Amino acid sequence: MSSALRPSLGRISVLGVGPAFEEGRWPAKAVVGEAVPVWATIFREGHDAVGATLVVTAPDGTTTTRPMPCEDFGMSLYRASTIPSVPGDYLFAVEAWSDPVTTWHTMADVKLHAGQDIQLVLAEGVAVLERAAEQPGRPPAEARVLYGAIAALRDNRLDPEARVAAAMGAKVRSLLERAPLREWVTRSAEYPLRVDRERALVSAWYEMFPRSEGARYDADTKSWVSGTFATAAKRLPAIARMGFDIVYLTPIHPIGTSFRKGRNNSLDAAPGDPGSPYAIGSPEGGHDAIHPDLGTMADFRAFVAKAGKSGLEVGLDLALQCSPDHPWVTRHPEWFGVRADGSIAYAENPPKKYQDIYPLNFDRDPEGLYQAIREVVEVWIGAGVTAFRVDNPHTKPLTFWERLLGDVRATHPDVIFLSEAFTLPAMMHTLAKIGFHQSYTYFAWRPSATEMGEYLTELAGASSYYMRPNFWPTTHDILTPDMQSGGAASFASRAVVAATGSPSWGIYSGYELVENVARPGVEEHIDNEKYEYKPRDWARARRLGIARLLTTLNETRRAHPALQRLRGLTVHPTDNPAILCFSRHVPADESPTGRADAVIVAVSFDAFHEQATTVTFDPAAIGLKGGRPFAVEDALTGQTYEWGEAFYVKLGPATTMAHVAAVRLA
Amino acid sequence: MSSALRPSLGRISVLGVGPAFEEGRWPAKAVVGEAVPVWATIFREGHDAVGATLVVTAPDGTTTTRPMPCEDFGMSLYRASTIPSVPGDYLFAVEAWSDPVTTWHTMADVKLHAGQDIQLVLAEGVAVLERAAEQPGRPPAEARVLYGAIAALRDNRLDPEARVAAAMGAKVRSLLERAPLREWVTRSAEYPLRVDRERALVSAWYEMFPRSEGARYDADTKSWVSGTFATAAKRLPAIARMGFDIVYLTPIHPIGTSFRKGRNNSLDAAPGDPGSPYAIGSPEGGHDAIHPDLGTMADFRAFVAKAGKSGLEVGLDLALQCSPDHPWVTRHPEWFGVRADGSIAYAENPPKKYQDIYPLNFDRDPEGLYQAIREVVEVWIGAGVTAFRVDNPHTKPLTFWERLLGDVRATHPDVIFLSEAFTLPAMMHTLAKIGFHQSYTYFAWRPSATEMGEYLTELAGASSYYMRPNFWPTTHDILTPDMQSGGAASFASRAVVAATGSPSWGIYSGYELVENVARPGVEEHIDNEKYEYKPRDWARARRLGIARLLTTLNETRRAHPALQRLRGLTVHPTDNPAILCFSRHVPADESPTGRADAVIVAVSFDAFHEQATTVTFDPAAIGLKGGRPFAVEDALTGQTYEWGEAFYVKLGPATTMAHVAAVRLA
Repeated sequence: MSSALRPSLGRISVLGVGPAFEEGRWPAKAVVGEAVPVWATIFREGHDAVGATLVVTAPDGTTTTRPMPCEDFGMSLYRASTIPSVPGDYLFAVEAWSDPVTTWHTMADVKLHAGQDIQLVLAEGVAVLERAAEQPGRPPAEARVLYGAIAALRDNRLDPEARVAAAMGAKVRSLLERAPLREWVTRSAEYPLRVDRERALVSAWYEMFPRSEGARYDADTKSWVSGTFATAAKRLPAIARMGFDIVYLTPIHPIGTSFRKGRNNSLDAAPGDPGSPYAIGSPEGGHDAIHPDLGTMADFRAFVAKAGKSGLEVGLDLALQCSPDHPWVTRHPEWFGVRADGSIAYAENPPKKYQDIYPLNFDRDPEGLYQAIREVVEVWIGAGVTAFRVDNPHTKPLTFWERLLGDVRATHPDVIFLSEAFTLPAMMHTLAKIGFHQSYTYFAWRPSATEMGEYLTELAGASSYYMRPNFWPTTHDILTPDMQSGGAASFASRAVVAATGSPSWGIYSGYELVENVARPGVEEHIDNEKYEYKPRDWARARRLGIARLLTTLNETRRAHPALQRLRGLTVHPTDNPAILCFSRHVPADESPTGRADAVIVAVSFDAFHEQATTVTFDPAAIGLKGGRPFAVEDALTGQTYEWGEAFYVKLGPATTMAHVAAVRLA
Repeated sequence: MSSALRPSLGRISVLGVGPAFEEGRWPAKAVVGEAVPVWATIFREGHDAVGATLVVTAPDGTTTTRPMPCEDFGMSLYRASTIPSVPGDYLFAVEAWSDPVTTWHTMADVKLHAGQDIQLVLAEGVAVLERAAEQPGRPPAEARVLYGAIAALRDNRLDPEARVAAAMGAKVRSLLERAPLREWVTRSAEYPLRVDRERALVSAWYEMFPRSEGARYDADTKSWVSGTFATAAKRLPAIARMGFDIVYLTPIHPIGTSFRKGRNNSLDAAPGDPGSPYAIGSPEGGHDAIHPDLGTMADFRAFVAKAGKSGLEVGLDLALQCSPDHPWVTRHPEWFGVRADGSIAYAENPPKKYQDIYPLNFDRDPEGLYQAIREVVEVWIGAGVTAFRVDNPHTKPLTFWERLLGDVRATHPDVIFLSEAFTLPAMMHTLAKIGFHQSYTYFAWRPSATEMGEYLTELAGASSYYMRPNFWPTTHDILTPDMQSGGAASFASRAVVAATGSPSWGIYSGYELVENVARPGVEEHIDNEKYEYKPRDWARARRLGIARLLTTLNETRRAHPALQRLRGLTVHPTDNPAILCFSRHVPADESPTGRADAVIVAVSFDAFHEQATTVTFDPAAIGLKGGRPFAVEDALTGQTYEWGEAFYVKLGPATTMAHVAAVRLA
């Protein structure tokens, strides 16, 4: 008659603890200052009261606790938030316990009201409060308060109901909420929470090809002169003035000449064509080297320093592939695939061949290749790089990334990795779970207001605890049909959604100039910067208004905590499918300013016609009660409106494509 | 530069394995012969092919494998079913692996079609098939087939495409599906699967108070003479003829006299009132004793034997509470709660008092009380009881139940526990997870066709892997308003949904007589059998037709595997909210008969008026393609119909309240 099974639960049930993924094998993610809700399903047999405590262990091992109130009785759901104050690896657990004081107090109210068992009720109250007062670790000051309550229960001058009311006054209840009498404490497993610096969540990226900035055509020699780190650095103050945080450079390494691609992805490069910076490696070096046209490592460090002076971090492309001329090809042929004829395998997507690219093979010498890549990453971190935009991570083994990102995090916890994976959801989500700080998304392929609204809702939901989206309206690889056709209006509309729909977004240089002409038949720019120099006439940007818009959007993002969070987004119905309306909200107790914050975004997806709609707005989404109108101020136009449970907006290319309306909360 | 983290995934990603709950701490459940789908999210980097294998370890330690095909490429979802053939504790795991043969074959098709790399493609095919042929453990017969494929690839007389086609013929592909070349095999964790005998899923219960059956009023003595096991046994053949599997007896133990309840729950019992069998225990004994009025332990064993001869199992109520006269009260006061005045706590729901009941306190001497209850259960199992209907399990600690059910399962794996918990979902679901084989549900409180349809869908969904519903239209405690008002039509309608909506259902005796009069103000029968003898005139049942209906329903359940499963239920839209239509389906490869089976149920919830509707039927729900009509035969009326993607039904109290239509599948 011995028990065959180890019990799988404790005296009080505490189940369904979250946020947690795949049996806790990966941490939930947050940044410093971001509220992390923790939830659990808690219940017990019978009718006695239960309580719950959230226990958070900080990276230094110190433990803090807070009460975890019942949020939904019917669903047995308890919830509390924690706001981490330093980066590092946290643990959280939930303690569920029997609450004999509340059990007694509830019973006492009913019985005394019914005139039942009066002396017994009072005696039981004395007993339970004595247990509370005498529990180990109870500070004397608290015990004194509880003995005061006991004295009140014993005060014969009052009637029984008054004695209970006096005993269980606000002070005693507040004390017991803070420091309850807990019995049968049952602790959940511990779940990991990884806290990064704030930039891992909140960031505005600006992508550039450094060789383009300052490149010039020399009419005498009839050839191009590459831009350099020095000429590119001249652009940094303007990028900073637009409010960006990270300037991300496409690969800066030597470029191969074998099978070099020419303009517009042609197979035959003309003399002087600079080649794609993604065909990495030449006799002059590989991933740890700098293209001689751009300068030296000292020049790169100077670029990083100038960026820093403008308040910009520098991010680098990490494209783990090689040109046939990469030094690794001869020194480490075991790091590449081999065909049946003994040749090194180039990239293919049959029947397409990419003979200018040799993919790395991570299975032939995993340890050697890992250490080489680890050293490459160290070189750039050593030179001041604080972010990597990782090219096609989904074509390399997940085990490789998990190891690399884990190791880098252990030594350089501030370094941010952005995953450029446009592939199946399972892969994108798992890349985020195993360590990528940010993820490119399907944002560019959500052309309608309805699809975008659903996608924003999805990304602010369950995946928000591990995947941080970074919204890019265009990149050097992406120019979707809607962006090709809608002119500045499309560029404005998309920028607004990207900047306000996610705490991280990114802009590819040239966006200011509404560069929207595609190479026929493909969804990318004509005269793609990957294959040629592309110096730009920034003065022309002023007329188009996009640079001004980007600046305003980044200013607005900085001013509003609501735009710096992933959760707290609600899509509100409109009666016009061309217009999307969503609100962003952070309540006061989760806001770094201590004040609640809310922004309402209404944006048109029709670049050609004026569109109007009535928005059916749920004030509860921004913490307001219904009925009352509220004032908003549009950050884009400066205009103010009175909005409420229904409001009308008219948007179009001739006026404004969007409102980004800050709500004046009391 | 060492790796800080242990990798959390393998070379191929295998995640989201199910069915699994709460980190695998509880097993998924199935019964012998029931198909258990196992799923996993499987993917890898790049474009190379992956495959998956389901590995099932049976209770005797033997392992079987089967291919796990991709069900949804976009969601990276793989799935395969296993059908356990013996009861016991199984484990399952999923292996994901690189599939170099498929990778090569896919690439070869594209390249040869494009006329690319022909010699290389053929050479690579030879190499990969040689790896397949030479892999360790490959039986010589299989290797010969693969060498044949290699010879075909090398056959210069054919053109390259024909060589690949000849090499990868049906025989080779079938061999490789069964016994693939698997590389980088990554194995998931092992997940538990608990397999019970079939009765744990498929059962028809019949509840009776044995003292009522054969009780008679003696006009001479002006007092009642209790029914006995001997008189109650006379009813067994009729119960068996109606097709029930388990006859469940309300408590058969001595009944207390202190604060005994009288008729209709009155506080003052009249002399001769028998008392509630749930007030267990008197000087004549407690939970391990038999009420002397019913007979002796020998009489009980004779009852069990007679039941067995009729093909019936005997279930017993397990109501863990005591009357004040229970022997435990004096012998083990530590098994009860104590009030502040030293008295034993009776049951309360303030301000209501239940002074005839002492709840057990499981915290004061958990080990002693546990062993005593364990012994009680052993007594009844020893006497032939194979099922327990557990009264209010949610008022006892879950840890207690997990231990008891685990221990009983270890020694008596055939014994079934049915949880009578009508409480919050978290508690009901957790009782099922920790070991209860079956669960009462909210079935009685789903009065409309819409609510019932949603509930059936819910119960056939995610919870079906651990919670097996048992549908009861009424019990001795439950007579809902809709059952009070609708006469025989309501009783018929409810019986149809209970018998066909879940593989387990139960009927409380008297249902045949449409006993539907409630005690005013409460949702239970007037003259409740809990407080008095209730002999019934079964001859009268014939006229009402309900007994005939119950018989037909149980016959139909036995004839149709589709009605013996929890999954495979689909609700189909009707255009009349009074009519519910759902289908049940089991495909051929999951059916114990080897043939697909389908039943369509249409049932009216309006007991007063004729109702008609057109059903919008999805033929895919029963494995049919659209378009073609199909023949059905109504098990209730014997009539046949031709139905299709839309069909018309008319139901009402004057004709039939339901169709239970068996589909004639080809």
